Amino acid sequence: MTSTGLDKGALTPAQFLEIDSAASVVRGGGGPSAEALLHLAIVNGVGAGAVLHTHSVWSTVLSGSHALHGGIALEGYEMLKGLEGVRTHKHREWLPILENSQDMVELGARVSQTLEADRGIHGFLLKEHGLYTWGVGLREAKRHVEILEFLMEVLVRSGAAQSA
Amino acid sequence: MTSTGLDKGALTPAQFLEIDSAASVVRGGGGPSAEALLHLAIVNGVGAGAVLHTHSVWSTVLSGSHALHGGIALEGYEMLKGLEGVRTHKHREWLPILENSQDMVELGARVSQTLEADRGIHGFLLKEHGLYTWGVGLREAKRHVEILEFLMEVLVRSGAAQSA
Amino acid sequence: MTSTGLDKGALTPAQFLEIDSAASVVRGGGGPSAEALLHLAIVNGVGAGAVLHTHSVWSTVLSGSHALHGGIALEGYEMLKGLEGVRTHKHREWLPILENSQDMVELGARVSQTLEADRGIHGFLLKEHGLYTWGVGLREAKRHVEILEFLMEVLVRSGAAQSA
Amino acid sequence: MTSTGLDKGALTPAQFLEIDSAASVVRGGGGPSAEALLHLAIVNGVGAGAVLHTHSVWSTVLSGSHALHGGIALEGYEMLKGLEGVRTHKHREWLPILENSQDMVELGARVSQTLEADRGIHGFLLKEHGLYTWGVGLREAKRHVEILEFLMEVLVRSGAAQSA
Repeated sequence: MTSTGLDKGALTPAQFLEIDSAASVVRGGGGPSAEALLHLAIVNGVGAGAVLHTHSVWSTVLSGSHALHGGIALEGYEMLKGLEGVRTHKHREWLPILENSQDMVELGARVSQTLEADRGIHGFLLKEHGLYTWGVGLREAKRHVEILEFLMEVLVRSGAAQSA
Repeated sequence: MTSTGLDKGALTPAQFLEIDSAASVVRGGGGPSAEALLHLAIVNGVGAGAVLHTHSVWSTVLSGSHALHGGIALEGYEMLKGLEGVRTHKHREWLPILENSQDMVELGARVSQTLEADRGIHGFLLKEHGLYTWGVGLREAKRHVEILEFLMEVLVRSGAAQSA
Repeated sequence: MTSTGLDKGALTPAQFLEIDSAASVVRGGGGPSAEALLHLAIVNGVGAGAVLHTHSVWSTVLSGSHALHGGIALEGYEMLKGLEGVRTHKHREWLPILENSQDMVELGARVSQTLEADRGIHGFLLKEHGLYTWGVGLREAKRHVEILEFLMEVLVRSGAAQSA
Repeated sequence: MTSTGLDKGALTPAQFLEIDSAASVVRGGGGPSAEALLHLAIVNGVGAGAVLHTHSVWSTVLSGSHALHGGIALEGYEMLKGLEGVRTHKHREWLPILENSQDMVELGARVSQTLEADRGIHGFLLKEHGLYTWGVGLREAKRHVEILEFLMEVLVRSGAAQSA
């Protein structure tokens, strides 16, 4: 985690901190970001070794236009094979969209429920907020960011933003 | 301020100048940009320590397509929390659009009226011209540019340019 | 070819390998990518000295929106003159779209048939997968990537993604 | 000018050549690009000291979608003030679109007629080919490229590509 309230473009190694499974700081200074509880919900829910969170234009647009459907179905794309365990473009990936919230306890509980209900997903969106994805390690989590962001850009440029 | 009529991609430190509250040059050479009066109207109107002005494609597109509505309502976006004092994505930010003008005295007066009428705004658009935003210092003003430009890109990519 | 399963952004020279016309590795370690058979089908079908394959957003969008037409007609663009042997913008380039498959033997056979049937083409798309193009050498193949990707971006930005 | 048939991304100073008013090479090797006659038509028609020609996605899209109107009217944009001699955003700039041709003598004559008929323009488009603009020197011509490309991007992103 990084300490809360920092400019993400000007981080130094000293501003990264380590937390335990109760979100208490083990190493480093400053408080953890409020979203630490979401990261922990994911670590506990799917056994992830790395969790990444992005705020992209594509995820903001799509999570707004598809919120009423509760998620986005990704199917038929070769790039899906970049997701861990996926072997064919015929795979149907469900990317749930959760209503955003500033109450991290409440939102963390909904994240846990989603991970419980939608087994096998590789990420989810918070509405008009951004993407959460994960992996066994940082390399896999980063690959999932690249794949999911690529596919969301494809959907928006295919006109999915206006059609919903 | 920078001196007027310079290529913004080739500025040297010597070409930045200092003006006083009457737009007279205190330090540096050349005349101030004609828009100095707008910067002063903002400094006086909201007590800003830094004022930034950008000419982006996104602000040009949106300020044209939404001019008839007098402004753009930004609501529901997590990124709104990057604006000073905003604590939740449920915040409704009003981004007024002012008719553009080459008469800086007249336009400066309208800017002052807008700042008076729309308390709490973090920026405004000049129609088919660009964005003005500010902060207590340069860091905050720069963050406001990033947030507002991000949200305008989201709106255009969501189809807001064609719907208006 | 590169060995299969590698991060394309972190390749080292040692990870490039040489294969023969039966897709057996002649030099270098690791297995060849599964798509080696497609590269060989192109080398054999058109006598190419270099084959390039890209996964772009533009080709993914267009190959999906135009799949029902079996391909994309490119005509009237000056940029077409960047394709080998094309002398005028009035040239009509046919860019076939093939259904994607994970069965490389079956897909390789369809690629060979397409190259046989559509003489004179400079590339083809795999649906929601990407572009294959080629040249007598790497420089020409790279130029064909640039030209075809440029024209696909033009088509998407012209609204071709939504109209299909 | 540069010699014809070169990769524009790998030019060396030696590959630039000087031509006279009859398009004969005065300094440097290789033949001039076929479009030398268009450059000369502009130099003669408006007394330009520098002529620039670009192949952008935006100009390709817009020159196709607006070809039937014979050109594009740009009006109301603050950025217009970046064009030489323009003092207000209320200026109406006419950007003619000429049918493309591979016959440079014929096309050069049409360019000369356009420059004669549309006094005061700062550039023109060749349909689905690109932009020509100019200036008294390279700096002004480059500024005109930036301004016109910016405004064409604004038009496409405003939905002008689909509406025509």
